[in-house]
Amino acid sequence: MADNVWFTEFQTDDVTLGLRVKAVLRQETTPFQELLVLDTDAYGRVLVLDGAIQTTDRDEFVYHEMMAHVPLSLHPHPRRVGIIGGGDGGVLREVLKHPEVEEAHLVEIDERVMAASRDFFPALSVAFDYARAHLHVTDGIRFIQEAAAKFDVIIVDSTDPVGPAEGLFGPAFYQSVFAALGEDGIVVAQSESPLLEPELVKKVQRGLRSAFPTVTLYLGAVATYPTGLWTFGLGSKKPLATPRQVSGLDTRYWTAEVQAAAFVLPPMVRELME
Amino acid sequence: MADNVWFTEFQTDDVTLGLRVKAVLRQETTPFQELLVLDTDAYGRVLVLDGAIQTTDRDEFVYHEMMAHVPLSLHPHPRRVGIIGGGDGGVLREVLKHPEVEEAHLVEIDERVMAASRDFFPALSVAFDYARAHLHVTDGIRFIQEAAAKFDVIIVDSTDPVGPAEGLFGPAFYQSVFAALGEDGIVVAQSESPLLEPELVKKVQRGLRSAFPTVTLYLGAVATYPTGLWTFGLGSKKPLATPRQVSGLDTRYWTAEVQAAAFVLPPMVRELME
Repeated sequence: MADNVWFTEFQTDDVTLGLRVKAVLRQETTPFQELLVLDTDAYGRVLVLDGAIQTTDRDEFVYHEMMAHVPLSLHPHPRRVGIIGGGDGGVLREVLKHPEVEEAHLVEIDERVMAASRDFFPALSVAFDYARAHLHVTDGIRFIQEAAAKFDVIIVDSTDPVGPAEGLFGPAFYQSVFAALGEDGIVVAQSESPLLEPELVKKVQRGLRSAFPTVTLYLGAVATYPTGLWTFGLGSKKPLATPRQVSGLDTRYWTAEVQAAAFVLPPMVRELME
Repeated sequence: MADNVWFTEFQTDDVTLGLRVKAVLRQETTPFQELLVLDTDAYGRVLVLDGAIQTTDRDEFVYHEMMAHVPLSLHPHPRRVGIIGGGDGGVLREVLKHPEVEEAHLVEIDERVMAASRDFFPALSVAFDYARAHLHVTDGIRFIQEAAAKFDVIIVDSTDPVGPAEGLFGPAFYQSVFAALGEDGIVVAQSESPLLEPELVKKVQRGLRSAFPTVTLYLGAVATYPTGLWTFGLGSKKPLATPRQVSGLDTRYWTAEVQAAAFVLPPMVRELME
């Protein structure tokens, strides 16, 4: 492909991120969204859904490590974990680094996302075939509503709150998540950029508070997400205890110390929690 | 101006940031660089030098607070502060929030940057006329080499290491900085993005180590800088002590706790310090 092919993401109506494209590896309309897999000079392979970058070879570890290890180390015994969305498999891979996790259930509405990950992101989809991984191609909202057994941790790895993920940002969903969690249950949901999307950060905080007595948020530095500073909303049935010591995780961003620092919020972020 | 005017920054050859432009307020070729002042929908007014965003109304506080308050709170008695570059005045404004600072010397090579700040960034240039502010329009390298009195803290608020700022990234400069500092002297220098410019992060670390016995780095989340995650290299003549308690600073990003968290480095950053 010519050197001057560019992918342009509209992060808002007024801000774009552009990536020089080496090759378009897949471009398809799934039953749920537009799916694009690119090979880029700066970030390696990039998964794009409805025009928004979901993950890239080069910075995926930050998001996936922070989505998985924070709630898992805060839960006293995370045996059964649910992942809503996250069809690329990155969060699943990180969750299954914890030996105490007996089952991880990945609930992805769009089978084509999982297919793209199997075909182009071997480092992300590596855990799909692990014995402890259970893959469900279905609507995450209904899955959570109908869950028979309780989860210890639920991780909401959704796209932005437009299109298929819209229902994952409202109070009704967080209330079903509460009901699907066991007594020490913890939920984490990606919750957008504090500087560019403060209203969405607040919306997730409000939604979590409508269901959970303990609600907070933490930060991570995801290069290809708008502004590079990302929030993760966290709800817990119990007050948060000191994280369990977990070791041997082989991470490039997360450490126990980085986790503690991620909860130290600048005033510009704290003000979105009120 | 039409709705579809865009400013495009090449963050690298392969990555761009685009901002929708409401108006071009100034566009000039100074003796040192191309200077552009834009009004944008997303970030308000934006100062651009040689195509690279220097600061914006909306996120300037992060960079300026982290450049100023970290070294000033780590120094036992910061009375005399030098700022190399930083002609917009943002670091000067933050430095002069500390009542114990008796003189702050701003050394900007390009008078037109200061003029643009006076004309378009009143919140940044506000401190230019304070009695404790001393403005020097001259080459920062020579200024530091010829400094008669010693500085307690020197802050290197440079552009990227191409064009006028190139000499501010080499060992020779850090050695003159060492010589210009008093016995508890501390220097801080902006040192680029760990994910997109790891070699520059390493270069600043190496340069600082060529002169200072204690060298480290810390992080800040600057939305309009490449990847949003920024490093600040720090060199100190003495081992770093617990920061002094400073209060009443009226900040939106920096707090004493955020400062402590900024030194907690993910493995992906720590590996650049070796």
